[in-house]
Amino acid sequence: MSIKIGIIGYGNLGRGIECAIRQNDDLELAAVFTRRDPATVSILTEGVKVCSVKDVADWKGKIDVMILCGGSATDLPVQTPQFAKMFNVIDSFDTHARIPEHYANVDAAAKEGGNIGIISVGWDPGMFSLNRMYANAILPDGKDYTFWGKGVSQGHSDAIRRIEGVKDAKQYTIPVESALEAVRAGKNPELTTREKHTRECFVVLEEGADAAKVEEEIKTMPNYFADYDTTVHFISEEELKRDHSGIPHGGFVIRTGKTGWNGENNHVIEYSLKLDSNPEFTSSVIVAYARAAYKLSQEGQSGCKTVFDIAPAYLSAKDGAELRKSLL
Amino acid sequence: MSIKIGIIGYGNLGRGIECAIRQNDDLELAAVFTRRDPATVSILTEGVKVCSVKDVADWKGKIDVMILCGGSATDLPVQTPQFAKMFNVIDSFDTHARIPEHYANVDAAAKEGGNIGIISVGWDPGMFSLNRMYANAILPDGKDYTFWGKGVSQGHSDAIRRIEGVKDAKQYTIPVESALEAVRAGKNPELTTREKHTRECFVVLEEGADAAKVEEEIKTMPNYFADYDTTVHFISEEELKRDHSGIPHGGFVIRTGKTGWNGENNHVIEYSLKLDSNPEFTSSVIVAYARAAYKLSQEGQSGCKTVFDIAPAYLSAKDGAELRKSLL
Repeated sequence: MSIKIGIIGYGNLGRGIECAIRQNDDLELAAVFTRRDPATVSILTEGVKVCSVKDVADWKGKIDVMILCGGSATDLPVQTPQFAKMFNVIDSFDTHARIPEHYANVDAAAKEGGNIGIISVGWDPGMFSLNRMYANAILPDGKDYTFWGKGVSQGHSDAIRRIEGVKDAKQYTIPVESALEAVRAGKNPELTTREKHTRECFVVLEEGADAAKVEEEIKTMPNYFADYDTTVHFISEEELKRDHSGIPHGGFVIRTGKTGWNGENNHVIEYSLKLDSNPEFTSSVIVAYARAAYKLSQEGQSGCKTVFDIAPAYLSAKDGAELRKSLL
Repeated sequence: MSIKIGIIGYGNLGRGIECAIRQNDDLELAAVFTRRDPATVSILTEGVKVCSVKDVADWKGKIDVMILCGGSATDLPVQTPQFAKMFNVIDSFDTHARIPEHYANVDAAAKEGGNIGIISVGWDPGMFSLNRMYANAILPDGKDYTFWGKGVSQGHSDAIRRIEGVKDAKQYTIPVESALEAVRAGKNPELTTREKHTRECFVVLEEGADAAKVEEEIKTMPNYFADYDTTVHFISEEELKRDHSGIPHGGFVIRTGKTGWNGENNHVIEYSLKLDSNPEFTSSVIVAYARAAYKLSQEGQSGCKTVFDIAPAYLSAKDGAELRKSLL
């Protein structure tokens, strides 16, 4: 008997979830739901239905955990509470500042439905948050650092694409190696935005566009680029497709701290990710937490949870005795 | 109202626990228990009693969590079940092969006493186990690597000290950088013992001892050194004291794995520690789990737990809302 998973939204993340389910024998894809015409959406898994999201209520009782693959700006704030009334749900809500509000909404809805809702699952928020939390609990007298990259920022790539004269673009966020080294060496540096990351842009221009003007507009764009050292490369559409079609990402969470009667000993805790595919890794984390949602629900629990609230063993397909024997 | 902690055993680990308690405002050292004559043991914290371990039963109800700082070979297999009948307990039992048996003994005793017993807490077993478990759940199609060091191995240092003609010694375990790099590059190497770590020994000879003979005996010692590339340096007692009196350690837990419909994308998850003081860091982890033991006990739970069974939020002094706001 496997755990039946539903997917709402079939973009990069939805497809990643589909692939991740295939890697876990105890999970099974039950259906994919889309806002598009289901006839126009073809998925990878044979024999699994694509349905309209309008018909999702028909699946109540037939799906153990529903994974929501919409965006954090407008989709998830509505969808997660809405579907938590019907199903155990998981999302990857990543607007850090709005997490408390989202938590409250999902908690009320999930409790009303007697379901589990796990929010903000992925790697940041998600595994990075977990590592920040563990490291903070272990080293109360210390300092946190998070670096992102090298990886593609969709938000920054989109911002460049909105500039007049730009046909397409890809932006990489790159951690500054010397800053990373200073942190690892326990120097506790105070780092400005500019000192932590650089930004590298690969831009395809429309015919006749003014390269110098586009470059200037990118480099001075407030919030997105003005506070960073930014490099702009103009390349052809073919080069962009050939060399920059992946969605790699990753990063580093480091906490340095002191112990000892007089703080005489230093320690460095570092967690890092190097990911070929940001959406597929995010999906892999979500799918492990889908298993946890199912187990928690089977125990009769309900309400909103985050990665902080879930004991690690719930993520694994192995039982406690096997985990203690093989991984402890 | 702070959580009252007792310490049984006042060596490097017990002293580390004492220092860690001081860094956490919600924890308080209630008493230290020793097998030695209490009058001969002086501790760092003013106003706290040193008692005989024989009188520990008198403290039932006055200590929220008892931390056991004995050795895994003979102390903890007896002590943890014994004291779990009276107190919530935590140990750092690290004989991996005997964990299932220890778990069963502590579970029975803790349930009998209505207490929580958390075993095998520290960094390996402990934080390294946790990271292996999370990474395995996230990337089911992958491979695990653990490297230790650079750090002092007490067991190997002791083994050298038992050789005739050796006055004192310190042994460092060092990960092989090229092996680490191959793993990080996703090459999935099959590594022999010799390819993963080297061993470096600093030895002080007794007067008149035969250096060549000692070196030969170290390098050919089965289990401890024969399977490794070992370097032996003979130094003076002063040099040993000056340059090798610390107890640094650390290491790396890496999992590489594939995702995608055809396993086309590679990922690397890496967790590493660089520790000035092995016992103080271990203590810091234990103290965070002592907080968890207290909270679990307050909820009315009992029995044996490991790091796999405890939701991360239990380790923190912050409440759920604060954690979500500041660290998620």
